[in-house]
Amino acid sequence: MKDRKLLMIPGPIEFTPEVLRAMGMATTSHMAPNFIEVFGQALERLRQVFLCPSGQPFVIAGSGTLAMDITAANLVERGDKALVVNTGYFSDRFAAILERYGATVTQVRAPAIGDAPALEEIEATLKTDSYKLMAVTHVDTSTAVGVDVKGLAALGRQYGALVVVDGVCAVAGEEMRQEEWGIDLALTASQKAIGVPPGLALVVAGPRAMDAFRQRKTAVSNYYADWTQWLPIMEGCESRQPRYFGTPPVNLIWALNVSLGQILDEGMEARFARHRRLSEAFKAAVTALGLRQVPVSPDKTATTMTAPYYPAGVDSKVLKHIEEAGVILAGGLHPAIKDRYFRIGHMGAVSASDILATVGAIETGLARAGYGFEAGVGLAAAQEVLRSA
Amino acid sequence: MKDRKLLMIPGPIEFTPEVLRAMGMATTSHMAPNFIEVFGQALERLRQVFLCPSGQPFVIAGSGTLAMDITAANLVERGDKALVVNTGYFSDRFAAILERYGATVTQVRAPAIGDAPALEEIEATLKTDSYKLMAVTHVDTSTAVGVDVKGLAALGRQYGALVVVDGVCAVAGEEMRQEEWGIDLALTASQKAIGVPPGLALVVAGPRAMDAFRQRKTAVSNYYADWTQWLPIMEGCESRQPRYFGTPPVNLIWALNVSLGQILDEGMEARFARHRRLSEAFKAAVTALGLRQVPVSPDKTATTMTAPYYPAGVDSKVLKHIEEAGVILAGGLHPAIKDRYFRIGHMGAVSASDILATVGAIETGLARAGYGFEAGVGLAAAQEVLRSA
Repeated sequence: MKDRKLLMIPGPIEFTPEVLRAMGMATTSHMAPNFIEVFGQALERLRQVFLCPSGQPFVIAGSGTLAMDITAANLVERGDKALVVNTGYFSDRFAAILERYGATVTQVRAPAIGDAPALEEIEATLKTDSYKLMAVTHVDTSTAVGVDVKGLAALGRQYGALVVVDGVCAVAGEEMRQEEWGIDLALTASQKAIGVPPGLALVVAGPRAMDAFRQRKTAVSNYYADWTQWLPIMEGCESRQPRYFGTPPVNLIWALNVSLGQILDEGMEARFARHRRLSEAFKAAVTALGLRQVPVSPDKTATTMTAPYYPAGVDSKVLKHIEEAGVILAGGLHPAIKDRYFRIGHMGAVSASDILATVGAIETGLARAGYGFEAGVGLAAAQEVLRSA
Repeated sequence: MKDRKLLMIPGPIEFTPEVLRAMGMATTSHMAPNFIEVFGQALERLRQVFLCPSGQPFVIAGSGTLAMDITAANLVERGDKALVVNTGYFSDRFAAILERYGATVTQVRAPAIGDAPALEEIEATLKTDSYKLMAVTHVDTSTAVGVDVKGLAALGRQYGALVVVDGVCAVAGEEMRQEEWGIDLALTASQKAIGVPPGLALVVAGPRAMDAFRQRKTAVSNYYADWTQWLPIMEGCESRQPRYFGTPPVNLIWALNVSLGQILDEGMEARFARHRRLSEAFKAAVTALGLRQVPVSPDKTATTMTAPYYPAGVDSKVLKHIEEAGVILAGGLHPAIKDRYFRIGHMGAVSASDILATVGAIETGLARAGYGFEAGVGLAAAQEVLRSA
């Protein structure tokens, strides 16, 4: 599929051999006791990875967008007011999904691409009205903007809104303490820092989110997303009682349990620290190479990914050179600046070796594209951070 | 996951080594040219497998229930009238999903469990009102009832209804000629006769279904299922132009393309014939062992699966004995008779060897459960059919 090329996009990422092995195992019955054991264990482990001991996990076949859809479909009723902290493409999407289920959405937009709204501005908006829900994109995959989820969650709680975090490019990479920070629902997709090939929507809903669901006055208008169907399945798996609704994606769930085991073996604190260190090393290399980043400042920047602008005289054709040098990167995604920047994911099982290989391939690609810089300056900057760790 | 035990349930089934290898390959980017090539090829092959040259295929991460949800969400608007030909559990589900999207549903129910409504009765109902859509479950996985899809589709067309076939336990196993028979939409899930681990919802919509979608007066009320988002993605893949909506399940789609290639290498006519022959052999064995089947007559019976009642004095504990003898089977699913019967799937890459192994394990299990019969009588009956082929 990609030979030995490194996949360094913001998902799908490089998966561990053990996870890929689980993907390729001969499938058993979705009702087999050993599968129910694995499914139940995966649910228990999700709580630990999301740091949400009292959360209700949902694992459902679909993409990250389904996880957003599930959230909006179950929590929103027609006429509910929702506040979207807008930091880019995926915040726009969340607003569209919330509206689809009847929410009246107020958006607080970042002053510019690469920026995030100030906490003061969010608070000012929260004061003006009564919001049922506040949605935050932890890392906007389109721009690498990362927000202060802890601060935003505290504000949302203070003003009585359910705090919903789209953690698609964040969970298990960026620091997120769902329960401690008062996040009512966090969601992600399998192919990001969770470390499993694409195909699973993952949601952990805290008690206040589940209460809001239970107190609905109207039925959920989306059948497949409806927790009424899925809650007994998830509860059944945790009590090791197989129950049927839809056939679960057996191999993906087996692989998920393997990956969650590896994540917890590393430990969440060590994992957060590794992501920070490798991100710092990579960003140091990008800066040493003279590339500006889309996020306007370090405190508005993700640790799971980096989004550099191409330097003057270089365009997206450089990605082809970088791939020839062995590393697959992603082009721009935000419509307004799509052709002016590129994206690198460094999350999940990413290592110092991957960081150096990626910086090296970018140096090779930039040189082939005719960009002038001192050979090895990016590698040296990355190594400076890596060796001090 | 299951060692060398044979998985003979009505999905997931036994997958080929090539399909499992694709599942375990190192994942590439969902935008990589070689993945877009594979995705595009899979869409083209779906048209051939569904025998629907002018159909629009959709491949989306999710379960078979999502395929039903996609169908109802895109084709139904509030107040539309829908007719459900009810043959069991999954017809009940289709009715519930259609209602969720605002349809007024009329159901024509089978006179008894294991039976299907007569064509005359369906026609009488079609005459009484103007139905936008008629939904048919080709094979009800809960009972092994198979219906006359060709006859039903002709009736639906005659009376101006969009003909929708839930082919979850049928497509690529049961004979179905979507375009020739006038079926406007057929759907399935990956883990059945299509031969890929669970996680893909597959839909092929004909021109009349696509027209009905394009002529909607209201927006689709389900975001993730909305063809407005997915149509450009599917069209983009077919023209080998990567476009982004949600991240597609890369490994599952790679595996799908492998399996569809294997299906087409066999050829649809040969494949239908093999499924008929193996079904006949298996059902001959079941009859020789003195077991009655849930479907009331051979013309109401699926070829992809068999649902025998337990004989007197035997209950679901026999499934444990059968598994110890090496074959995993499924228990009952239809709530009204759940504990009185069991289910065997024989579809996809199923072989004569699998049929004999399964009959042998059932004989062993029945003997251990104390049921009296002449040893080998089931095997002999199956072999009689198999060797005459």
